[in-house]
Amino acid sequence: MGADNQQERPDTSWIVGFVDGEGCFYVGINKMQNMTLGWQVLPEFRIVQHRRDIDALRHIQSVLECGKICRNHGDRFELRVRGLKNLNKIVAFFEKHRLVTKKRFDFQKFREIISLMNRREHLTQDGLDRIAKIIAIMNRHTTPKYLESSETICQTSEKMKI
Amino acid sequence: MGADNQQERPDTSWIVGFVDGEGCFYVGINKMQNMTLGWQVLPEFRIVQHRRDIDALRHIQSVLECGKICRNHGDRFELRVRGLKNLNKIVAFFEKHRLVTKKRFDFQKFREIISLMNRREHLTQDGLDRIAKIIAIMNRHTTPKYLESSETICQTSEKMKI
Repeated sequence: MGADNQQERPDTSWIVGFVDGEGCFYVGINKMQNMTLGWQVLPEFRIVQHRRDIDALRHIQSVLECGKICRNHGDRFELRVRGLKNLNKIVAFFEKHRLVTKKRFDFQKFREIISLMNRREHLTQDGLDRIAKIIAIMNRHTTPKYLESSETICQTSEKMKI
Repeated sequence: MGADNQQERPDTSWIVGFVDGEGCFYVGINKMQNMTLGWQVLPEFRIVQHRRDIDALRHIQSVLECGKICRNHGDRFELRVRGLKNLNKIVAFFEKHRLVTKKRFDFQKFREIISLMNRREHLTQDGLDRIAKIIAIMNRHTTPKYLESSETICQTSEKMKI
């Protein structure tokens, strides 16, 4: 949406502002027996909106050229981007179009994890420990279960400075 | 923030995107014994953010050239714009820089109320009834106490189509 032409579609700055308000860079680390190390790292970017604003999600999806729109809960829908190939597009977008609020910090940590995953370090114990520590300082500083698990606390307690 | 110059300040499109996500156009209608009709209409525009993003609020305040930043609750702060003179600036800004989500609907209703107040119609019974009806369809469709009050229900029940 240009300042001087109300008929234009929302521009990238609008998307950055909207994501500064509503976007979420999230990385889950979940127990998964059939993974080599028993844990799966699942990064995702998402924006949740009420059904009435599904068109805004569709527009952002078309600009980012990735993501699926699916029901989040009740009347709420989300644009959700998963998968390394797509998430690398997200990283490239927000490297070029810089977030303004402290959400940029979450993005930077998210980018670090995507970078580790690009190098397949999440498939090593050291890499997994490092990712779990990064997750622990992202978003609302929730400690992933991975770090609380009895198997991993000893392994990670003295490792790495992020 | 320009797409190609990461050192620029966030631009108006960023502000529109941020307000599409986080902004609130609110009109209260409160009992006030010393007002002629016994009710006060109190429109305000606000954006609430965690303390960590108070700089974003300050930036928006400087672009809009109005508003006060004050504590909302706990670690949350708000940029709050009140007063007809300032709210006319807000209306002019979002007329020029168009909201994208369904928040535009709330803005349009907000603008109607500001327009009525500019014409001092909120000081008449008809104007007050009309404003209360508009409020009832804004935001989350909460019915203002004004419309629930026994003195006004009979007066407003058959009036106006918004």
